[in-house]
Amino acid sequence: MKNLALSQRANRMPASPIRKLIPLANAARKRGVTIYPLNIGQPDIHTPEPVREAIRSFDQKVLAYSPSPGEDYLLEAFAAYYKQNQIPLEPEEIIVTTGGSESIFFAYLAICDPGDEVIVFEPFYTNYNGMAFETNVTLKALTTYAEDGFQLPAMDVIEKAITPKTRGILICNPNNPTGTIYPRQTLEGLGYLVKKHNIFLLADEVYREFTYDGLSHTSIMQIPGLEEHAILLDSVSKRYSACGARIGTICSKNKAVVDACLRFAQARLSSPTVEQWASRAGLMMDPSYFKPILEEYQRRRDAVMTGLAAIPGAVCKTPTGAFYVIVKLPIKDAELFARWLLTDFQADGESVLVAPAAGFYANPGLGKDEIRISYVLEVEKLNRAMKALAAGVKQFQKIEGHPKAENVAVA
Amino acid sequence: MKNLALSQRANRMPASPIRKLIPLANAARKRGVTIYPLNIGQPDIHTPEPVREAIRSFDQKVLAYSPSPGEDYLLEAFAAYYKQNQIPLEPEEIIVTTGGSESIFFAYLAICDPGDEVIVFEPFYTNYNGMAFETNVTLKALTTYAEDGFQLPAMDVIEKAITPKTRGILICNPNNPTGTIYPRQTLEGLGYLVKKHNIFLLADEVYREFTYDGLSHTSIMQIPGLEEHAILLDSVSKRYSACGARIGTICSKNKAVVDACLRFAQARLSSPTVEQWASRAGLMMDPSYFKPILEEYQRRRDAVMTGLAAIPGAVCKTPTGAFYVIVKLPIKDAELFARWLLTDFQADGESVLVAPAAGFYANPGLGKDEIRISYVLEVEKLNRAMKALAAGVKQFQKIEGHPKAENVAVA
Repeated sequence: MKNLALSQRANRMPASPIRKLIPLANAARKRGVTIYPLNIGQPDIHTPEPVREAIRSFDQKVLAYSPSPGEDYLLEAFAAYYKQNQIPLEPEEIIVTTGGSESIFFAYLAICDPGDEVIVFEPFYTNYNGMAFETNVTLKALTTYAEDGFQLPAMDVIEKAITPKTRGILICNPNNPTGTIYPRQTLEGLGYLVKKHNIFLLADEVYREFTYDGLSHTSIMQIPGLEEHAILLDSVSKRYSACGARIGTICSKNKAVVDACLRFAQARLSSPTVEQWASRAGLMMDPSYFKPILEEYQRRRDAVMTGLAAIPGAVCKTPTGAFYVIVKLPIKDAELFARWLLTDFQADGESVLVAPAAGFYANPGLGKDEIRISYVLEVEKLNRAMKALAAGVKQFQKIEGHPKAENVAVA
Repeated sequence: MKNLALSQRANRMPASPIRKLIPLANAARKRGVTIYPLNIGQPDIHTPEPVREAIRSFDQKVLAYSPSPGEDYLLEAFAAYYKQNQIPLEPEEIIVTTGGSESIFFAYLAICDPGDEVIVFEPFYTNYNGMAFETNVTLKALTTYAEDGFQLPAMDVIEKAITPKTRGILICNPNNPTGTIYPRQTLEGLGYLVKKHNIFLLADEVYREFTYDGLSHTSIMQIPGLEEHAILLDSVSKRYSACGARIGTICSKNKAVVDACLRFAQARLSSPTVEQWASRAGLMMDPSYFKPILEEYQRRRDAVMTGLAAIPGAVCKTPTGAFYVIVKLPIKDAELFARWLLTDFQADGESVLVAPAAGFYANPGLGKDEIRISYVLEVEKLNRAMKALAAGVKQFQKIEGHPKAENVAVA
């Protein structure tokens, strides 16, 4: 009897580099070790009271399907929110998705058949890869570098990567996992390219509000002339500390794109009903809500950077957006290191859970000495976590037999 | 400049035959016509109080991601529920999905690469088709007939449809859209086939409880020897009148299947958090909850059958499960008819929204004179709806120039 085989895409589908170490962290916790979770973009910021109150006050007698493109009231709330952010979108240009994850999925389906290509910039948000495996889309990854602050390659480098199979360019801005914000000029350059080659420009802007040091964010929807090319991917998860709501959007001024996404939305019936009501409450909050939160995140980022500066040989430019840092560590194998931190290490009974960065790269062999840190804990905890990380690096270097780390400055 | 084309799968993706007429129904309502919605499996039964109370009492300070395979407490509640139903499943054999829709999606991904085949029985739940378009799976549909009560074809007919590309057989039991329950013998026959040909057997059992006339339901998980082959697809949507919760499961004793589904689950992070808590409350209810509800649905089914008996030429055997009827009407084009009911017809200010059945068939040309009726309204409303439907058929026949309908008995 031949083997009862799974599909190739099931066999090749990677485990999440962000989540796969969680069982080891849980085991360490059972042994009494305090583990600081720096692996996942799950903010500890309280979900705002209006959102929580909306859940508590949900009073429909029947928890019914919502309309496939989303509740009318939510489409209107999103449109109002976008206009408030100088992003001109009408309700009929928006489809509510079950989290930003589904936005990526719909975008791939809408523009790609199996074997088609999308250009991404590595390190990239790992689920761009997972969704590409599921939909048989080929990601063509152009590498960005810690030393350059992970800014995009020059436009001629990007243009050379465009082939007859390329259907779009996908960016995340502000970037997960690098924390980089792309300047307007970069977006205009990409806009020029997608128009010239008649392909799509996809932008994941779920971290729109999370910009520091007085910088602001430019949306691809604000670049003139991209009406047919631009597809915006969005989510309320980070914005309102509501990751468990699973509410996002896919938006475009291209009617054919929205119509295709509506049919994809119909095939999964609807997004969760209670959270649509809750998300509306978030979108209707005054933007002043973000001010103290951004100040808090900026303090956290600074705490992480201070902690990294104390690790001789760590390389990382100060990120200006989102709440992630990709840092190159003076070790050889960050995957082994991350596991070891959970299985064999503790400093004063404490250790950290980090995401090995190799899973954020498509080209094999890259990111092996890098980790992603999410700064989603309060400063005091981050300080302790960074202390544990520094102690871990020092101890691991001895085990790995790594040559004495040079003190490379942390910018 | 060449056209900025969408993907072929986007272009071919069908609109939901269940949902596509909703805008016409809304327009009719705006004109003051009462429209009875018989198109969608959205029960009017109140979501049970424990489920609603769980939502209202949700008190997490942070609406956080849940674990990708589902909250531990929910996996345990599902396992207990399955055991209560004589379905032997452990928590680690279950992955929580974002609705039954995602269960279908994960199942296709796990067993099929693009171009692989799954055998289904038409008319079938329309989203089997939608998900197949998205995943480039080829559905090979074997036709079942109103005259036979939509029972499956003989096993040798099914076996002949198996090709080297066939990866599984997918059934829905009790069946949406036909209301048919498959006897244990049928499941054993399918079990023999999937073992002989070393392929998977997928069963969508979301209507498990909805059996009438004293009949009971057999799960594929109860057929011995199918441990490696059986994949169960499930959802709380209909069971607890909680379609908007978007909580389902995919279950298997085949560890490789569950492991693949876990990785698919990680790529979309998690199912909605609040509804996992709410679903647990449903699963923990005493099974006596279903008794009055099933009695109510049986009354509704009887009301529909009485209504259909009054339509000369309508063909339909009395369904024994779920809450749907596929009925062959004495008209030529049910799609036109369904639209016309909303745009040009009313009887005493009332009309009905039904689902044209062609969208439930894969083979072109079939089901053109059939509609699906969901009996999810109370008896009094159903009586009025069936009266409007009968009047509609009579009037439409004149327009269509259909030969005088013969009075074919409704069984």
